[in-house]
Amino acid sequence: MKFSPLLDQLINDLQILPGVGPKSAQRIAFHILERKRDDAVSLAHSLEEAMTKIGHCQQCNTLTELDICAICANPKRQVERILCVVEGPADVAAIEQTNQFSGQYFVLMGHLSPLDGIGPDEIGLDKLAELLASGDYEELILATNPTVEGEATAYYIAEIAQEYGVKASRIAHGVPVGGELEYVDGATLSHSLLGRQLIN
Amino acid sequence: MKFSPLLDQLINDLQILPGVGPKSAQRIAFHILERKRDDAVSLAHSLEEAMTKIGHCQQCNTLTELDICAICANPKRQVERILCVVEGPADVAAIEQTNQFSGQYFVLMGHLSPLDGIGPDEIGLDKLAELLASGDYEELILATNPTVEGEATAYYIAEIAQEYGVKASRIAHGVPVGGELEYVDGATLSHSLLGRQLIN
Ligand SMILES: [Zn+2]
Ligand SMILES: [Zn+2]
Repeated sequence: MKFSPLLDQLINDLQILPGVGPKSAQRIAFHILERKRDDAVSLAHSLEEAMTKIGHCQQCNTLTELDICAICANPKRQVERILCVVEGPADVAAIEQTNQFSGQYFVLMGHLSPLDGIGPDEIGLDKLAELLASGDYEELILATNPTVEGEATAYYIAEIAQEYGVKASRIAHGVPVGGELEYVDGATLSHSLLGRQLIN
Repeated sequence: MKFSPLLDQLINDLQILPGVGPKSAQRIAFHILERKRDDAVSLAHSLEEAMTKIGHCQQCNTLTELDICAICANPKRQVERILCVVEGPADVAAIEQTNQFSGQYFVLMGHLSPLDGIGPDEIGLDKLAELLASGDYEELILATNPTVEGEATAYYIAEIAQEYGVKASRIAHGVPVGGELEYVDGATLSHSLLGRQLIN
């Protein structure tokens, strides 16, 4: 025991947060105990509620506590007949902020990574194939990250789109190669959406 | 709304953590939702329990859920008749790790900072005076941080000690000037404890 049992437990549990080791967990614990008790109780409640209630949208697979997320449930988003495939929910948020896209999304929650055991089923490509088979979409925009894995995943999905006779496009390389989509500024991202290129 | 209501709430609440802005709150939320759900529920529980149950030791003022902390409650620690004054609980832990001190502590939970409205009462010097008046201590080791505020606080407390006829010493400047005690390595800290100098 370094401090009291409860304090040691808190410091230990805080280390599940990415980038937080023993020393910073200690700093965080003291900081909130000294200055943010009420806020930290609110955080405890939203943490527990989020962890137990947030699942995946039944249509686009993004993280949400709803059965169908707000974007998928919006009938105006279906009119475009375009599905934009991204790696994660943060990418949806980044693209939404450009105001350049009014279609729907499909969220892979990752990318193909055979060495880590992440194959097509793990990123929901079976579900994506069903959506393509529905005939509801004319175009698939592949907006995976401009990394090696993101490119490989995009080309893999482009082949599936071809099978279903759906046109596939890749967002333009206005986005910096090797970067991550969610950190790209809005102007660059807008440009890359407008300049998208047909793949097949 | 950027994501779903619960997810937005979680990302908002995570920003009470020191150094966590909107982007890193988002990263943390996705990370734990994707990989650490059970651990995050445990964190939620220990957060709530810590925030509601942890208070201050009635004797030394450190953070603890007990009325009297384990160190103050240990009769062996009273034999030395030495009280070591530190700025925070992390400093207690750092000094304990040196195994060079077997007396008791008094934790200021800060330092004098008149411009921020932190005067003697805010750092418990009234309580410290009571301890000195008890006649239980022969020496007061001033182990506040080797910063301008820490030095000023040490000298202020040395004067109180003098009033009560208790010898006051300052840990030696083996610790780097301008640094913070909790990040000093054990050897340096041991050296600074052994080389402490009388003030009055
Ligand atoms: Zn959805
Ligand atoms: Zn105590």
